[in-house]
Amino acid sequence: MSDSRKPVCLVIGAGAGIGGNVALRFASEGYHAVLARRSDKAGLDRLIAQIKESGGSASGAIVDASEDGSIEDLVARTEADIGPIDTALYNLGAQIGNRALSDTPHRTFELGWRLGCFGLFRLAHVLLPTMAKRAKTGRHGTLLVTSATAAVRGNAGQHSHAAAMGGRRMLCQTLNAEFGPQGVHVAHIVVDGSVNAPDTLGKLLGDRFEAYKASKGEEGVIDPAALAQTYWNLAQQPRNCWTHEIDVRPWTDVPWWNDNPPPAINTSARKPK
Amino acid sequence: MSDSRKPVCLVIGAGAGIGGNVALRFASEGYHAVLARRSDKAGLDRLIAQIKESGGSASGAIVDASEDGSIEDLVARTEADIGPIDTALYNLGAQIGNRALSDTPHRTFELGWRLGCFGLFRLAHVLLPTMAKRAKTGRHGTLLVTSATAAVRGNAGQHSHAAAMGGRRMLCQTLNAEFGPQGVHVAHIVVDGSVNAPDTLGKLLGDRFEAYKASKGEEGVIDPAALAQTYWNLAQQPRNCWTHEIDVRPWTDVPWWNDNPPPAINTSARKPK
Amino acid sequence: MSDSRKPVCLVIGAGAGIGGNVALRFASEGYHAVLARRSDKAGLDRLIAQIKESGGSASGAIVDASEDGSIEDLVARTEADIGPIDTALYNLGAQIGNRALSDTPHRTFELGWRLGCFGLFRLAHVLLPTMAKRAKTGRHGTLLVTSATAAVRGNAGQHSHAAAMGGRRMLCQTLNAEFGPQGVHVAHIVVDGSVNAPDTLGKLLGDRFEAYKASKGEEGVIDPAALAQTYWNLAQQPRNCWTHEIDVRPWTDVPWWNDNPPPAINTSARKPK
Amino acid sequence: MSDSRKPVCLVIGAGAGIGGNVALRFASEGYHAVLARRSDKAGLDRLIAQIKESGGSASGAIVDASEDGSIEDLVARTEADIGPIDTALYNLGAQIGNRALSDTPHRTFELGWRLGCFGLFRLAHVLLPTMAKRAKTGRHGTLLVTSATAAVRGNAGQHSHAAAMGGRRMLCQTLNAEFGPQGVHVAHIVVDGSVNAPDTLGKLLGDRFEAYKASKGEEGVIDPAALAQTYWNLAQQPRNCWTHEIDVRPWTDVPWWNDNPPPAINTSARKPK
Repeated sequence: MSDSRKPVCLVIGAGAGIGGNVALRFASEGYHAVLARRSDKAGLDRLIAQIKESGGSASGAIVDASEDGSIEDLVARTEADIGPIDTALYNLGAQIGNRALSDTPHRTFELGWRLGCFGLFRLAHVLLPTMAKRAKTGRHGTLLVTSATAAVRGNAGQHSHAAAMGGRRMLCQTLNAEFGPQGVHVAHIVVDGSVNAPDTLGKLLGDRFEAYKASKGEEGVIDPAALAQTYWNLAQQPRNCWTHEIDVRPWTDVPWWNDNPPPAINTSARKPK
Repeated sequence: MSDSRKPVCLVIGAGAGIGGNVALRFASEGYHAVLARRSDKAGLDRLIAQIKESGGSASGAIVDASEDGSIEDLVARTEADIGPIDTALYNLGAQIGNRALSDTPHRTFELGWRLGCFGLFRLAHVLLPTMAKRAKTGRHGTLLVTSATAAVRGNAGQHSHAAAMGGRRMLCQTLNAEFGPQGVHVAHIVVDGSVNAPDTLGKLLGDRFEAYKASKGEEGVIDPAALAQTYWNLAQQPRNCWTHEIDVRPWTDVPWWNDNPPPAINTSARKPK
Repeated sequence: MSDSRKPVCLVIGAGAGIGGNVALRFASEGYHAVLARRSDKAGLDRLIAQIKESGGSASGAIVDASEDGSIEDLVARTEADIGPIDTALYNLGAQIGNRALSDTPHRTFELGWRLGCFGLFRLAHVLLPTMAKRAKTGRHGTLLVTSATAAVRGNAGQHSHAAAMGGRRMLCQTLNAEFGPQGVHVAHIVVDGSVNAPDTLGKLLGDRFEAYKASKGEEGVIDPAALAQTYWNLAQQPRNCWTHEIDVRPWTDVPWWNDNPPPAINTSARKPK
Repeated sequence: MSDSRKPVCLVIGAGAGIGGNVALRFASEGYHAVLARRSDKAGLDRLIAQIKESGGSASGAIVDASEDGSIEDLVARTEADIGPIDTALYNLGAQIGNRALSDTPHRTFELGWRLGCFGLFRLAHVLLPTMAKRAKTGRHGTLLVTSATAAVRGNAGQHSHAAAMGGRRMLCQTLNAEFGPQGVHVAHIVVDGSVNAPDTLGKLLGDRFEAYKASKGEEGVIDPAALAQTYWNLAQQPRNCWTHEIDVRPWTDVPWWNDNPPPAINTSARKPK
């Protein structure tokens, strides 16, 4: 039975950075964007208003993804009341900065897992079988997962975040292995650089946010609108050409796999490895 | 000094598959496409004619990339006579099928390296410093490299190809490390699946090509036009959001990191790893 | 203040396979082995007796690692009553076989995390600062972590296990980043093959265990005594030459990164990637 | 037909560092060590004398591995005149320091490939089929390959070395895929740190060598004798428990995957990735 309602783009973790921009981008293409975030209703309302002012369709909810049933209810309500979720973006992390192991309480490690990994599992659990069912009728959904460098290497001080992200990355592979052949596109995006996102990075750095961005130089932090374009492109890929993993970073950022600062070229006193 | 000529998209390895489609895609956006391939002038001319018929600008040359100076001359002639190369696609490999070590002569191993790795080094050598210079005036070039699963894992029988691709991938990282911060976008695309490409896969399989594609099912082989779109998207990324590595495959293909065939779910007699 | 008691090798997850054999190996070199497992006191007692009969020193406890405080108490009691833990082996996983997402309840996913990832975090939390302190006086401890292929790639049906193992691997990197420079050796062992372990693989396969081993051929499953030797070797590495990651598999097993079954050499009808 | 001569450990690249120490270690266990190096006959003779003085059996040759036929002749002469090569160590690289692309001539890039990748291919070509044949009678040979961080990531300035090492790593995987199941153990060792090796690192740093080692602190550079022990351990693994890849580094070295210097813990002004 086909659904005549607008397709929905559901964003879990819709701040003014990546999440809000992805919502805006998909809404500009005819999706109804559903924006979910944990707090700051005023900020949420601003994002929704911005989308509507651009001619797009949007709504939102304050949702604590770490709460049992929250993600499940959100998906159920959206499917019932708004429309079929054709694209879902899991945009939550639990990056808390660098803490020594002794300064990482058990509850912090667990919260990192709940938001960074378990929440994605719960979203997939409640949504992917539905997407797979719709895929049989030619309607192929997409699950986009904003991830981090911590998903591919564990830096000092990142116990909770890296464990959560490493788990997330492997979970994305298992989800892809099961649902890719059922017509659901699962993509894991390694954001290997800072994003100009007031609600996450901005909050973490506070006063130092503007100075930080200035210090990164021209085009030195990821513009979330540009990243949203990459997410849109992923969702547009036809089934014969699906990306599972992709990385992004600003041109002046050193990729995670490289020495930083880079070794001096031609005048290196240290033997390169 | 600015250049008023059309920007050039140079494709080294312009068969009717990925190379030809990337040329077509870029030409459709106002580039002049330069198509270089090793043989089959008639096929080359057909591709060029197709681009012109669509309203695009194109030219080409028969070039043996393994010959000393060939890549260098091609770049020099293009820059002098046609226009500034804003995007270069290195689309050569030396996939010869699976051969036992004893059936892989030294000259085969070397040819794989010449085409798969050294040719890319030569292209970068002659082009990237020029792109870096132009970047200072705001003109940011892109080097796209079509790569393979053999770049990330060495399968049995793939001695020459995997060695060449593994070298290619590391070379792309060193090029990115040096030229990314100079404003040149280097991207390594892992094509983890078969492409509907008559001139490469078609040649390798001969009579069995159509049957093979049919056996892969609906949307079971990569449509090179779809892949060209992904390449176009990469070239459009602004500097603050550059991808270095991305993978693609058909939805029904098992990613290289997964067991193939997939283990039976729920009825596995073998302990999963 | 130096400690004249025997150094302790603590094994969390001491079944008759890897855990029991590591305990035996370290005890044979003068360690006091403390064996902890969740159930089967008779089996535990047999392992302890076997070690004592060989002239070694051993004791054990039935411990449910998923219980709050259990790991912490075990470490505290061992340090207080037995001796300094110079080597700890975290040998727990939660491999439950392959289940579709819909057949993976939330509690299963969480239990996988508790045993596979959180338990290791808790062990590190309570032990590594102590090891780091002892390192200042020249006593360098070792944390060995038995891991799985699921730590490096997520196969279909492995949602819980892969998420837990992927998190484990990243956690091992963060622990190594913080404690390596403090003189504590952290090693992550990717066991990429079946181990001849009656208490884990044997239990999973039941009646089919012997037939399975026979089907794998000569030396076709990992002998846990051989693996224990590799663990011993890791613990003996001097500080100037520490391994963080190592893989093992039987000679006839196809490494996880390769196609399995391997492509036919020389007669391949399918284009290799 | 069994061979009553001493088993041979062939070291290609036998300087006073890793190569010489591996030769010494294996000779101490009853092997006849054959040491091959490109120059410095006096140094070679000193190593051979040292082994003999310890009661071991050794001989050597000055061999330019980049010359056609050199590796092949060395293997043939050894097998004919000395004994069966049970362990071969390919210990050559072509690390030349960091050079900009423009300062990396074509011949340098090619030489890196010849020594770093092609030489290994040639050694495998001439030796592995023989090892596979002997494996049928229960004699399982080992191919050890000293590799570098450049095999797993390409740093700025490392064009030649990274391309050669990346190719080497993939080649090791294809060799393992083909010969592992035939009873030949192929191991790729990622040496992710400086080795106290007078003939390679010492030569590169010249006067600064001692100061460099002092600056690395206590146990801050790899002791090649310790690394030789790890190589010995790999060669002793039984077939049911073979390692293909392993990494090593000094305890105070930051693993290649981590940010260096490490981010400040607890007082980070920069958002971690």
